[in-house]
Amino acid sequence: MIVVFRPGSEESQIQDVIERLNRYGFDVHRSSGVNQTVLGAIGVKPEFDPRNIRVMEGVAEVYRVTEPYKFASRSWKKENTVIDVGGVSIGGEEVAAIAGPCSVEDERQIHDTAAHVAACGATFLRAGAFKPRTSPYSFQGLGEQGLQWLRAAADEQGLKTISEVMEIGQIDLVARYADILQIGARNMQNFPLLKEVGKLRKPVLLKRGPSAMIDEWLMSAEYVLSEGNAQVMLCERGIRTFETYTRNTLDLSAVPVIKKRSHLPILVDPSHGTGIRGKVIPMARAAVAAGADGLMIEVHPDPDRAKSDGPQSLYFEQFTDLMAQIRLIAQAIGRVVRDAPAAA
Amino acid sequence: MIVVFRPGSEESQIQDVIERLNRYGFDVHRSSGVNQTVLGAIGVKPEFDPRNIRVMEGVAEVYRVTEPYKFASRSWKKENTVIDVGGVSIGGEEVAAIAGPCSVEDERQIHDTAAHVAACGATFLRAGAFKPRTSPYSFQGLGEQGLQWLRAAADEQGLKTISEVMEIGQIDLVARYADILQIGARNMQNFPLLKEVGKLRKPVLLKRGPSAMIDEWLMSAEYVLSEGNAQVMLCERGIRTFETYTRNTLDLSAVPVIKKRSHLPILVDPSHGTGIRGKVIPMARAAVAAGADGLMIEVHPDPDRAKSDGPQSLYFEQFTDLMAQIRLIAQAIGRVVRDAPAAA
Amino acid sequence: MIVVFRPGSEESQIQDVIERLNRYGFDVHRSSGVNQTVLGAIGVKPEFDPRNIRVMEGVAEVYRVTEPYKFASRSWKKENTVIDVGGVSIGGEEVAAIAGPCSVEDERQIHDTAAHVAACGATFLRAGAFKPRTSPYSFQGLGEQGLQWLRAAADEQGLKTISEVMEIGQIDLVARYADILQIGARNMQNFPLLKEVGKLRKPVLLKRGPSAMIDEWLMSAEYVLSEGNAQVMLCERGIRTFETYTRNTLDLSAVPVIKKRSHLPILVDPSHGTGIRGKVIPMARAAVAAGADGLMIEVHPDPDRAKSDGPQSLYFEQFTDLMAQIRLIAQAIGRVVRDAPAAA
Amino acid sequence: MIVVFRPGSEESQIQDVIERLNRYGFDVHRSSGVNQTVLGAIGVKPEFDPRNIRVMEGVAEVYRVTEPYKFASRSWKKENTVIDVGGVSIGGEEVAAIAGPCSVEDERQIHDTAAHVAACGATFLRAGAFKPRTSPYSFQGLGEQGLQWLRAAADEQGLKTISEVMEIGQIDLVARYADILQIGARNMQNFPLLKEVGKLRKPVLLKRGPSAMIDEWLMSAEYVLSEGNAQVMLCERGIRTFETYTRNTLDLSAVPVIKKRSHLPILVDPSHGTGIRGKVIPMARAAVAAGADGLMIEVHPDPDRAKSDGPQSLYFEQFTDLMAQIRLIAQAIGRVVRDAPAAA
Repeated sequence: MIVVFRPGSEESQIQDVIERLNRYGFDVHRSSGVNQTVLGAIGVKPEFDPRNIRVMEGVAEVYRVTEPYKFASRSWKKENTVIDVGGVSIGGEEVAAIAGPCSVEDERQIHDTAAHVAACGATFLRAGAFKPRTSPYSFQGLGEQGLQWLRAAADEQGLKTISEVMEIGQIDLVARYADILQIGARNMQNFPLLKEVGKLRKPVLLKRGPSAMIDEWLMSAEYVLSEGNAQVMLCERGIRTFETYTRNTLDLSAVPVIKKRSHLPILVDPSHGTGIRGKVIPMARAAVAAGADGLMIEVHPDPDRAKSDGPQSLYFEQFTDLMAQIRLIAQAIGRVVRDAPAAA
Repeated sequence: MIVVFRPGSEESQIQDVIERLNRYGFDVHRSSGVNQTVLGAIGVKPEFDPRNIRVMEGVAEVYRVTEPYKFASRSWKKENTVIDVGGVSIGGEEVAAIAGPCSVEDERQIHDTAAHVAACGATFLRAGAFKPRTSPYSFQGLGEQGLQWLRAAADEQGLKTISEVMEIGQIDLVARYADILQIGARNMQNFPLLKEVGKLRKPVLLKRGPSAMIDEWLMSAEYVLSEGNAQVMLCERGIRTFETYTRNTLDLSAVPVIKKRSHLPILVDPSHGTGIRGKVIPMARAAVAAGADGLMIEVHPDPDRAKSDGPQSLYFEQFTDLMAQIRLIAQAIGRVVRDAPAAA
Repeated sequence: MIVVFRPGSEESQIQDVIERLNRYGFDVHRSSGVNQTVLGAIGVKPEFDPRNIRVMEGVAEVYRVTEPYKFASRSWKKENTVIDVGGVSIGGEEVAAIAGPCSVEDERQIHDTAAHVAACGATFLRAGAFKPRTSPYSFQGLGEQGLQWLRAAADEQGLKTISEVMEIGQIDLVARYADILQIGARNMQNFPLLKEVGKLRKPVLLKRGPSAMIDEWLMSAEYVLSEGNAQVMLCERGIRTFETYTRNTLDLSAVPVIKKRSHLPILVDPSHGTGIRGKVIPMARAAVAAGADGLMIEVHPDPDRAKSDGPQSLYFEQFTDLMAQIRLIAQAIGRVVRDAPAAA
Repeated sequence: MIVVFRPGSEESQIQDVIERLNRYGFDVHRSSGVNQTVLGAIGVKPEFDPRNIRVMEGVAEVYRVTEPYKFASRSWKKENTVIDVGGVSIGGEEVAAIAGPCSVEDERQIHDTAAHVAACGATFLRAGAFKPRTSPYSFQGLGEQGLQWLRAAADEQGLKTISEVMEIGQIDLVARYADILQIGARNMQNFPLLKEVGKLRKPVLLKRGPSAMIDEWLMSAEYVLSEGNAQVMLCERGIRTFETYTRNTLDLSAVPVIKKRSHLPILVDPSHGTGIRGKVIPMARAAVAAGADGLMIEVHPDPDRAKSDGPQSLYFEQFTDLMAQIRLIAQAIGRVVRDAPAAA
């Protein structure tokens, strides 16, 4: 930690800060220039709140010099984490395609979607059975029945599954049917839930909260990692800004930023990131071009009749086209999108 | 719902939209000007997502004309809701003073704080026993032991209590000791938790999420209200903006906005709203001047040694001064801050 | 400047940074702990961009330790700046009331407003003759004729005047009629304009840009101050956030923040800060309670017929009430709002 | 315009609004449901501020149904605008590569950069001679000497030029040397400047302000277009959000949004959009994948010694690589990046 004093601060103020830092257990190194004094406080005190020093008299600024997370950081683990999900890997050379409807609505819907996305080269089927909805009056998901249909549809096509878990009481159930547990954006800082999925030995996809700074997001990953579950992947899905034309502002620069700060895989969800079907395709292409390890795309056999998120779900033929486009873009940057089975 | 078409949109596009609206069950009224057509769609379909129409060809904009919430709205209940908490009311003429440390740390700390804030005229004691912390390595609260000390300290001074509940599994426990259950900002959209506290018949304080628009906040209140619990109060505690000098940007204009849109009491927490002790007092005064129904203030007997949020906690003497100042400000706008008992 | 290296960075990386800093002319002090190295770079290089170091291999973070501005800082001048405007002071004990219509529309309108606000105790008349409008099709102001009417109306009531200058070519003209030149929010970083008003010896009111961090705002003040004009006052008028219910989010915490970092007077404009008449009064009261040195309020004899900003302009009787309320609030915190002349 | 009343609003309130609308010259159509009344107000009144109605008693919401701009809208001109700049077109099939240093620093620097970027297939040379800098103490550009060197370097390589104009007094000078005039982000709402460049018959590149909503940006374009200059191109360069890891948040979804709302070409500047060299390449690739009509990239022969924006400037070899990558990405989506001349 670095403590910078205001120009002209008094010696007694500086001594007060040194004494306080010593009390907290830091070793203190002082360097005084003509105008200004700076202290370096050495020692790792994870519980320490730097604002305790910032509010003291004479202090101008306080900076942490250590990252607040450990297991999530690139300093701790230099090579990329590659997560194996039943034989399909995420975080390696291949760009993973995760596709499916927002929610499981009925057996036919999820089956048809599975068949289509598998035929296009996707390897994961996504669909929710428990849905976080802004309104208590909106469709809230089919629960276990939905999970069963999801699993059956995926198995028939050789796909892996991902589904959201909203509360601790749902973990066991969802984990029985899903290969990856999704923590939604609104639960990114639901710490009891993060700790519980940290106790599993199952991959977890952690979406970025709409107002989460990148360090906060990695701190939430740290909650899962520090409980022993090393299979965490991140997913950018848009942040809240003043721009209202799109539902959120998809922050694609988070992709290279995460790649630098962390070893965890980083995926992108352009469906929630834009909220508008016509913007999903260009932003999905852009995500691959930016270096994302995977895409999460909403696809529906009849978006106009979808019970949730229809307006941001692609039509089947749009998804076919998108897969062809991102295959070329992945090649351009030395990555791979799996070929459609028929083409194999 | 109002559907506005682009100038020059084709008749077939308009017919497609009308057909779709009819299928959803809306009555449609059409009005066509020289350049532009506008449709009014009448009917209340709470599950309907207006983006379904917005993405159709020829459509320029779609506007809801009904508020998405019912029980939370001023249209539904014209007079202010006044919540009685064991004889102390919130939402009436009196401006409620809720004060106490961020967390219960030990028996002495909470007892001393209770004695001091009661002597200044506060009527509620706040303190957490379960703490949502950004880092898994930070102090996470004392659990039930903390709640017991909170209750005992409050009872001795004739204070009511408020404490946070972070997950469904904690509700029963916290409800045994606290007069008001607090839902923290990070849980504002933890819908399973909101539904559960909606089943209680106990006051709930719902903090605004750091990136929540006012309508989303009221929708979260609706989750509680629609389960039958009418005792909901709101608390503004700062939103996330680009400005980083303060921890959050306290949005005091939310006070008059909520007063217009809703009948629920609205409180302000300037401690989390600014995150800096020196800014708490001016912003607390400003909140009362803006018309808030109450303040929630962090006070600690020794902020420099606090286990959490010390830098934003007031010293005892600062709280004494603050209460004197807001008493005068409340008078200036026709409200009342309770006198200190000694002065009574 | 402080340079923090990543844990495990290589000695050659550290040497490269030291060499670079030396080349820029800094004195470098090194302190290496077990895990991490930190460099202190001493010397003031106003043109130096710290990102030059931040992008180097092995570097984790770089922090400035000196404020980027000089004349605007509280370190440079400890006592508050009090600006004398023809005998009326801003920044002292008195809270200044600046009131008037958005634009001068006709002689009668500005005369009636002047008479009313003077009768309520205001000391400054505001009104624009050159208006920055989002749309090229909106009313753009009356130009010199407007300034003449503004001056005449003010003189008749013994008021001082303030009016906006939008471009260099207007400075001489506006300066002939206005006692304070206003730089609008959209021009906060119009650097050629700032330099030119810096050459005057006339008070300048500098509004905060809607996306300006506090340090950027003070840097813009520095443009004026560094040209020799010491009579700068600041005005908070709302920042752009995701919340759309109000036109902007009035950041009242900027008041105590500016008071700590700078010696310049800080005013608040709740009219632009909220954009809604019904929110102006509570936020004006809140601004005074937060410690603002003055208010800037839009008042119009017939807001429903105003050519600009009618919806955020107060009716005369509302302004009368507001002045009475803020007089009491100012007293509560040891400040003064001037009495209405009749009451004197 | 659509006026929606609150449920239960009174007939007298509705009549007041109708009367007011009539007075403004609107034709009013009324439709009343069981709970709610809605008015449609027909007529184009560019000066009318809808907030005038929104603040009236009984009114819940007011919506414009017409876009506030005309010449900038896709409704007014259906086909894409393609701007011819001395034989090189922007807005057609080709993705334009604009590259060069932040500022002209000396003859050699601009000459070497021109030679390199031309050899990679770029068609435009960018560099500033007048620089808007946050600090008055930073390098402010070389003025006319810089423009002369820019022109000479470009001519030698057969490149077109673009340079920024900061104030009205610089227009003539910059227009003598530059093929495209750039209006910087901080001047996006410098309306006098916009009007003046609107009087030219020369291409203008209008950067998005850091807090500008898309409609405000198009309104600024309208200022130029409505003066008769039809050669306007837009450039996304990052918006200000709470995320501070990158200097700005590059809003790539603005590309498809602009394509839908407007016929004007849309370019992307990932250098300012991220502010970090290592993020420029992935975001440049992403911009092309998203459908941008061009890129604006900072390139410098020796970024570590650049007088401005060195940390976000690419090294020559990075630019070479980037051009090769975006050439493949452009192909993947049916666009073209010009071949390097040697390869032609």
